[in-house]
Amino acid sequence: MSHLRHTEQRKRFRAILNGTECLSPASVYDALSARVAEIVGYKLGILAGSVSSNTTLAAPDLILLTLTDFADQVRRMMRVSDLSLLVDADHGYGNALNVMRTVQELEHAGVSAMSIEDTALPIRYGQPEGQDELISTGEMVGKLKAAVAARRDPSTVIAGRTAALKVEDTARTVERVKAYAAAGVDCIFVVGVESVDQIKVIHEAAKLPVIVGSAPATIKREEFARAGGRVLLQGHQPVAAAVKALRAVYEHLHNGGAAADLKDKIASAKEMDALVFGEDYKKYMRDFLR
Amino acid sequence: MSHLRHTEQRKRFRAILNGTECLSPASVYDALSARVAEIVGYKLGILAGSVSSNTTLAAPDLILLTLTDFADQVRRMMRVSDLSLLVDADHGYGNALNVMRTVQELEHAGVSAMSIEDTALPIRYGQPEGQDELISTGEMVGKLKAAVAARRDPSTVIAGRTAALKVEDTARTVERVKAYAAAGVDCIFVVGVESVDQIKVIHEAAKLPVIVGSAPATIKREEFARAGGRVLLQGHQPVAAAVKALRAVYEHLHNGGAAADLKDKIASAKEMDALVFGEDYKKYMRDFLR
Amino acid sequence: MSHLRHTEQRKRFRAILNGTECLSPASVYDALSARVAEIVGYKLGILAGSVSSNTTLAAPDLILLTLTDFADQVRRMMRVSDLSLLVDADHGYGNALNVMRTVQELEHAGVSAMSIEDTALPIRYGQPEGQDELISTGEMVGKLKAAVAARRDPSTVIAGRTAALKVEDTARTVERVKAYAAAGVDCIFVVGVESVDQIKVIHEAAKLPVIVGSAPATIKREEFARAGGRVLLQGHQPVAAAVKALRAVYEHLHNGGAAADLKDKIASAKEMDALVFGEDYKKYMRDFLR
Amino acid sequence: MSHLRHTEQRKRFRAILNGTECLSPASVYDALSARVAEIVGYKLGILAGSVSSNTTLAAPDLILLTLTDFADQVRRMMRVSDLSLLVDADHGYGNALNVMRTVQELEHAGVSAMSIEDTALPIRYGQPEGQDELISTGEMVGKLKAAVAARRDPSTVIAGRTAALKVEDTARTVERVKAYAAAGVDCIFVVGVESVDQIKVIHEAAKLPVIVGSAPATIKREEFARAGGRVLLQGHQPVAAAVKALRAVYEHLHNGGAAADLKDKIASAKEMDALVFGEDYKKYMRDFLR
Repeated sequence: MSHLRHTEQRKRFRAILNGTECLSPASVYDALSARVAEIVGYKLGILAGSVSSNTTLAAPDLILLTLTDFADQVRRMMRVSDLSLLVDADHGYGNALNVMRTVQELEHAGVSAMSIEDTALPIRYGQPEGQDELISTGEMVGKLKAAVAARRDPSTVIAGRTAALKVEDTARTVERVKAYAAAGVDCIFVVGVESVDQIKVIHEAAKLPVIVGSAPATIKREEFARAGGRVLLQGHQPVAAAVKALRAVYEHLHNGGAAADLKDKIASAKEMDALVFGEDYKKYMRDFLR
Repeated sequence: MSHLRHTEQRKRFRAILNGTECLSPASVYDALSARVAEIVGYKLGILAGSVSSNTTLAAPDLILLTLTDFADQVRRMMRVSDLSLLVDADHGYGNALNVMRTVQELEHAGVSAMSIEDTALPIRYGQPEGQDELISTGEMVGKLKAAVAARRDPSTVIAGRTAALKVEDTARTVERVKAYAAAGVDCIFVVGVESVDQIKVIHEAAKLPVIVGSAPATIKREEFARAGGRVLLQGHQPVAAAVKALRAVYEHLHNGGAAADLKDKIASAKEMDALVFGEDYKKYMRDFLR
Repeated sequence: MSHLRHTEQRKRFRAILNGTECLSPASVYDALSARVAEIVGYKLGILAGSVSSNTTLAAPDLILLTLTDFADQVRRMMRVSDLSLLVDADHGYGNALNVMRTVQELEHAGVSAMSIEDTALPIRYGQPEGQDELISTGEMVGKLKAAVAARRDPSTVIAGRTAALKVEDTARTVERVKAYAAAGVDCIFVVGVESVDQIKVIHEAAKLPVIVGSAPATIKREEFARAGGRVLLQGHQPVAAAVKALRAVYEHLHNGGAAADLKDKIASAKEMDALVFGEDYKKYMRDFLR
Repeated sequence: MSHLRHTEQRKRFRAILNGTECLSPASVYDALSARVAEIVGYKLGILAGSVSSNTTLAAPDLILLTLTDFADQVRRMMRVSDLSLLVDADHGYGNALNVMRTVQELEHAGVSAMSIEDTALPIRYGQPEGQDELISTGEMVGKLKAAVAARRDPSTVIAGRTAALKVEDTARTVERVKAYAAAGVDCIFVVGVESVDQIKVIHEAAKLPVIVGSAPATIKREEFARAGGRVLLQGHQPVAAAVKALRAVYEHLHNGGAAADLKDKIASAKEMDALVFGEDYKKYMRDFLR
């Protein structure tokens, strides 16, 4: 079972923000994926809204999941995981009051950091297909102030997330992030990044560490680090890899293949036992049941 | 979204029990794995207690999960899945009254069939390591009668599960399954099977279809079918395959590998979209949001 | 335990809509209040959004609760209640896609009927205090069509709820309810009613039964019935009565009063036992545990 | 919203245990009852297992509720309550491993203190009606050690609860509480008390503060305080008072009574607004939504 308390996990996240490196989190979505990432060596995880919708609801990324669904998923992970978890809390599930509840529920569920974004969500009636819309800077500032005020553990990280690079331009993005920084957030989360320079000007404008939501693969991690980037997302391949593996196994068996032939495609019993804290539980049984 | 109603899913399960073939279910554990199995062609799924503990709690199969944890997991799957789902409801989470609640909660969550077993669970204080114990036939009959009485949908399948082949012997197993059948269950679920003959005598004693929990790989499916076996479990490789795939991806990325290099190890965007009913939702947006 | 299946409860609700009387539901909010109402003789209950926020979150009626909170509360009630339950599902917790999920979750939780309203919710950034705003008729029609399409049990009742009498006027309300009726809803739920005539014109325009959300106490139930009203809400006194009783008991005991002096202020042990199905459970124990 | 963090609430509970008075907690069961008790002046609350079954499941006190049901109920209360909450966690919902999970879940939900009892639960197959049975001292010690080991916040209080006065005798009760104290619990919770002397010998044997689960009303609070009693339960009248009030209101309205006539039987709108933090939310709206 997890031995790190949530506050310590949050402090570790803050240390990354205050450091000089730019790290990538493991994209995780359930107790087992979080455990695997941890055993591989990750200290940092991320649960994306899209991945949460996909895995919890088998639905697309259309804000169909509720804050409660999301917090329950986080809780199932953080009950057993030592990762510092960053979550994408979408738009905070409503207005500034809903943001307050979002912060309380996710903090309770164990996140280390959460982002609230300035995209207008869910899709508006009549909204042109595939065209993002932003809420006003004033509205977003209200939401971010609400998020900061709702936090009970001062170590919890609030990230102001902006899609302004995609919807507006760099100049207006800079204006936005200055206002978000003034609202008291701990870092800026940017999507739609196309150059290191964008990160640099955002970092300098906000005077805050930056989380890079996605970026051209040609830009090196070190470049982002020098520009103020502290976390760099790399996409959400893990769940897609699990799906591919599941499909191969189901096809093999459904076509009459032997279970024994799957041996080299599956984690060993020993590895599964380590994931589920087998040794800890054996000790608990010795100590408390005999 | 799933278009089959639970009663229809249950009737399909009953059709399998009343048929002449012996089918293997897909071992599934979340909304996505259920969707993958369904797309591959499965009509039948199983959620094992061990797999549920592993995936929901990252804990071993020690009855640490609650009925509520289990029902919530089932619900997340059955909200979107057309599979007929058989679940291993362990000992019904307590005494006969708890069995009643187990039936109500799991029926509500959408299972087609559930097994209640005669193993004494959870592990007793002082119980010798690795040595299963059975509850008395009288107690088990009370539990099974309670299960049958608690069912609201008459199409829901109750399976009496016995570990008596492992703990006692074939003769006493026969006595047990006769009593379980008299209690009104719809089928017998047997673990620890070593020969087709065991299934044959159990089937003839109970006059009920049999679910074979595990068996030597040397015995052919057709042999079980002729002996009264209608469902044959094959183990729980899928989750272990997902773990192995996750580990490979996390290791690759944690070691600095490029995300782009993972392309042939992950499901395509198109495949992911099909899993999450992408086309359905596009239609809903056209129909209701514009 | 409840012996009525949800479909039967829904059919009973439809019989009320298709009848000639105008009934008032019991305002209920948890398993015990639903049981008390049922024992008193009610067949019809209502869970209001405001009461749900108050009781589940101890929060005002500001759409702070999630669909999941609400569905969980309904489920706790409908697990044990034979009431036909009408619930106020607010705006359906987002856009038309969220409405679809709302219908699925609430249907699963056991409601007989749910209303979706045309008020713009939650409160918009910058919205003048105490001033309701409506969504467009087009948007509302999309939501109602989505609700109807999402229903799995054709007996589930979808009510189109409008606040147009308060925000617009009778003429525009009539236009709205015609459009809502054309979207396929089963009845119209109106708030802000000031006269029987309003109900009459709404009923004639929509050609559907009407639920009267609130109205001057001077108007008699029979008048509404003749005008097409089938359900008449009377407010949410029960929870406020429970609060007053709780306060009296806490004050008595906190001030050093004797517990024994409370005897005539509390339900008897026998009454409590009847609420919790004491006799049923005694029978289950005799039948299944001995 | 609650402004006290759980650790502070726990420390306040410990201060009561380490004090010289013997206080009675408010018997609370949902967010509203907890709020009412707090406003009346209580610092200490209790959620009994029986009350939890009654209110959450409308079921008798037969261990039908799951740990998850119970923790969810606690969480709904502690999300908004500043009370220090003592909960009756029954037998810890299984064996010593289940106790560990019980501690983790209830601690996460926000309890200040929880008792684990030595009654054998749930009712055993064949157990004579109305006759409690105890688990062995060895088994109970294992459970209590497990509880202590599972605690993450050292301020969380673990109470060893014994029914030995009812089932065995004072001498054997003394032996048990010595063993429970040695297992590391923070206090002893005793039911079936008939005299102050019993509390005195238990307190001296365990060298720990005592919670008196029930006792003849003839014994004064001060006597228990001198004997080492720090908390004295007084029964669970509040929920029964709420039931009586609900019944009166439902009967009045069901018999055609006017809603307006209920005015002096219900809490005022102002009082309801205070319970749900109306002023706080008005401020949040001013600060973050305008």
